[in-house]
Amino acid sequence: MRKVVFYGAISLDGYLADKNDDLAWLFDTNTNDNSTYPAFIKEVDTLVMGRITYQETIKLLNGEPFYPDKEVFVFTRDSRNDFENIHFVNENPAIFINTLRKKAGKMIWIVGGGNLLQPLLAANLLDEWWIQIAPVLLGKGKRLFQNGNYFNRLDLIGTTHFGDFIELHYKN
Amino acid sequence: MRKVVFYGAISLDGYLADKNDDLAWLFDTNTNDNSTYPAFIKEVDTLVMGRITYQETIKLLNGEPFYPDKEVFVFTRDSRNDFENIHFVNENPAIFINTLRKKAGKMIWIVGGGNLLQPLLAANLLDEWWIQIAPVLLGKGKRLFQNGNYFNRLDLIGTTHFGDFIELHYKN
Repeated sequence: MRKVVFYGAISLDGYLADKNDDLAWLFDTNTNDNSTYPAFIKEVDTLVMGRITYQETIKLLNGEPFYPDKEVFVFTRDSRNDFENIHFVNENPAIFINTLRKKAGKMIWIVGGGNLLQPLLAANLLDEWWIQIAPVLLGKGKRLFQNGNYFNRLDLIGTTHFGDFIELHYKN
Repeated sequence: MRKVVFYGAISLDGYLADKNDDLAWLFDTNTNDNSTYPAFIKEVDTLVMGRITYQETIKLLNGEPFYPDKEVFVFTRDSRNDFENIHFVNENPAIFINTLRKKAGKMIWIVGGGNLLQPLLAANLLDEWWIQIAPVLLGKGKRLFQNGNYFNRLDLIGTTHFGDFIELHYKN
């Protein structure tokens, strides 16, 4: 079975983005030109995200192709036609991911946001986590961990310190 | 001016306690008989906490004296008489702490919970943070970081790994 993983940065107070989906606070955080991302992304062939994360990623890519060597699934209630490597999905996320992870392939990256993660957490579908914590208190925004019905104890695998970030690595 | 600090453990999803104020998930987390607490508490002479944190701490102390060598301030809307080293306070927390920190003494420990921290964060009164993260996802409970009107960038001073905890140390 393929691993289903989360990899991403949050503020110290637990937000993926501020209340306007802005990430300036994140890009203002020094990485020291160092990151675990290049090694991580090599192990991934599939990205899964919610509609807002998709739209914000398009803005960040600024015209560049959208992860052209990966398969991308975007959860949305709108009906949209797939194009190139992007598939729009209007299904139960937990059932969809549970099916997807049984197909052959590399890791499945749950990019976000919290709305999409919540049902996957409730179904205990996350195998591994890399969470980079930026030393910022935002006060409000889009939380990575929304309220949900689950309890789960993980194993701390290790930490990586780069620039002003501390990355926490956990396995389920 | 005395330092106003937070020291305490949260779940990976950001909770100080579960929704029933239970801490079993925390006490089930291995410390390897190691902790930064003994060194920390030596530098503290004053504890500040909300009413629920106070009541839950009494339960945990199970009849032992309540930090007998420290001065303790408990924020509560109930009118209560002080006894021994415990002072009950029904004032604006930010104004109270801002006055308290100007008096001579050691560090002031904001024990919690999130309700008390929120106005102190909004007034930018926290100088230093030691946050121990337990590898647990609770799904719901009492959040350390409640919504508030603030933005603050901290400095990551370092991390300490003990047992299944990772402690993050920040300065304002």
